Amino acid sequence: MQRYFIDQVVKAKEIKIKDSDYHHIKNVMRMVKDDLIEIVDLDGFIYLGRILDFNNKEVTIAIEEKLLENNELNIEVTLALGLVNRNKTEEVLRRAVELGANKFLSVKLKRSVIKHIDDKLDRKEKIVKEASEQSKRSKLMAIEETKTLKELIEYSKDYDLRICCYEEAEKNTKSLKDLLKEKHKKILVLTGPEGGFEESEIEILKANDFKIVSLGKRILRAETAPLAIMAIIAYESEQN
Amino acid sequence: MQRYFIDQVVKAKEIKIKDSDYHHIKNVMRMVKDDLIEIVDLDGFIYLGRILDFNNKEVTIAIEEKLLENNELNIEVTLALGLVNRNKTEEVLRRAVELGANKFLSVKLKRSVIKHIDDKLDRKEKIVKEASEQSKRSKLMAIEETKTLKELIEYSKDYDLRICCYEEAEKNTKSLKDLLKEKHKKILVLTGPEGGFEESEIEILKANDFKIVSLGKRILRAETAPLAIMAIIAYESEQN
Repeated sequence: MQRYFIDQVVKAKEIKIKDSDYHHIKNVMRMVKDDLIEIVDLDGFIYLGRILDFNNKEVTIAIEEKLLENNELNIEVTLALGLVNRNKTEEVLRRAVELGANKFLSVKLKRSVIKHIDDKLDRKEKIVKEASEQSKRSKLMAIEETKTLKELIEYSKDYDLRICCYEEAEKNTKSLKDLLKEKHKKILVLTGPEGGFEESEIEILKANDFKIVSLGKRILRAETAPLAIMAIIAYESEQN
Repeated sequence: MQRYFIDQVVKAKEIKIKDSDYHHIKNVMRMVKDDLIEIVDLDGFIYLGRILDFNNKEVTIAIEEKLLENNELNIEVTLALGLVNRNKTEEVLRRAVELGANKFLSVKLKRSVIKHIDDKLDRKEKIVKEASEQSKRSKLMAIEETKTLKELIEYSKDYDLRICCYEEAEKNTKSLKDLLKEKHKKILVLTGPEGGFEESEIEILKANDFKIVSLGKRILRAETAPLAIMAIIAYESEQN
């Protein structure tokens, strides 16, 4: 069933949907009276809705029942990605939503090929909303402001576990598997830009209690590493 | 160090490289005399090479030493993907190489939006070669012919473990984690096309000893599911 994230709180037996969701329901999905949709409201509650009526700018939905489904991870994961270009960032955004991340941010690192990304928050939020509807999330992934390494470290203090994925992780440190066996509530994951991390950055991260882990023997591209680590975290948190 | 897969077996102290690798070394990487490269030969052995000389169609490389590096998974994994369009197939190909898959094939399933993909093997092999060089593989992922479900089942008999990733996997069957804890040598993984599997296909797969597993509570897109399962298999096989 098609899912829509609406920017209101469901308080009554009927709600009205306008703008792009209205367009999607009417013109893309070509739904008609009595078709059913799922609605996620601003409080993150999910409702079953039935289409009552269209006019030329809004659709009226009857709220049939509150659904108890929860497709969220049982830990909070923030994904921090070394600054890469917009296409790659958008691809990672989409898949991070599918794989359950709660927050996303870019980090300016020394080897980032691009030095600046215009934070088109509108466009990013649209991507997150669409991917959330498709993957049946009940919470929207938040997009935080792009940070410097120093700002990231300050920001990371609030987390139980800080992981940095680095292809040259030392063999004698704790493995990713050992780290994920410990129960954490809030994890921050950092992956590098195209050129990877500089050693000096790794030293700073280590000194600030980031655990440096390898994602395997092969070199993963900047867009692949965040997906791999998110898939692994979801796997460890959901499979028993 | 840049890695090149060459279509010859290293038998002498010097080799000559032509065509696209020659172009890449000379014009893309702008390498000069005495620069070092890694060479993977047709037998899968890796050598350290030093550039001796260019002429206008080939570069002569001195073989310095044989390297003992092995970045391959310690299990053989074949990835079978429900037939999707060429862009998506190529994206999955690239990332499957990075994540360590040994073989790849497409499977015609009922909900595949496209019914036919022209098997441009040249182009696919070029993608595999480039991704292998970048990710430091020492074996090239093989591309098998597109199969029907019936052909896939016949083909799968040769494997120790057959996994099908399905969002509606039953809760009372073995989890992916339980399956991966058992030691297997050859795993076949099947993921669906955009529209997912039909129930009748799942029934046929079950009857042919495919284990039906979930990759988590969210719905993954056709291009994301193969990456998630490959990342998880690599993680379980490489992290101790």
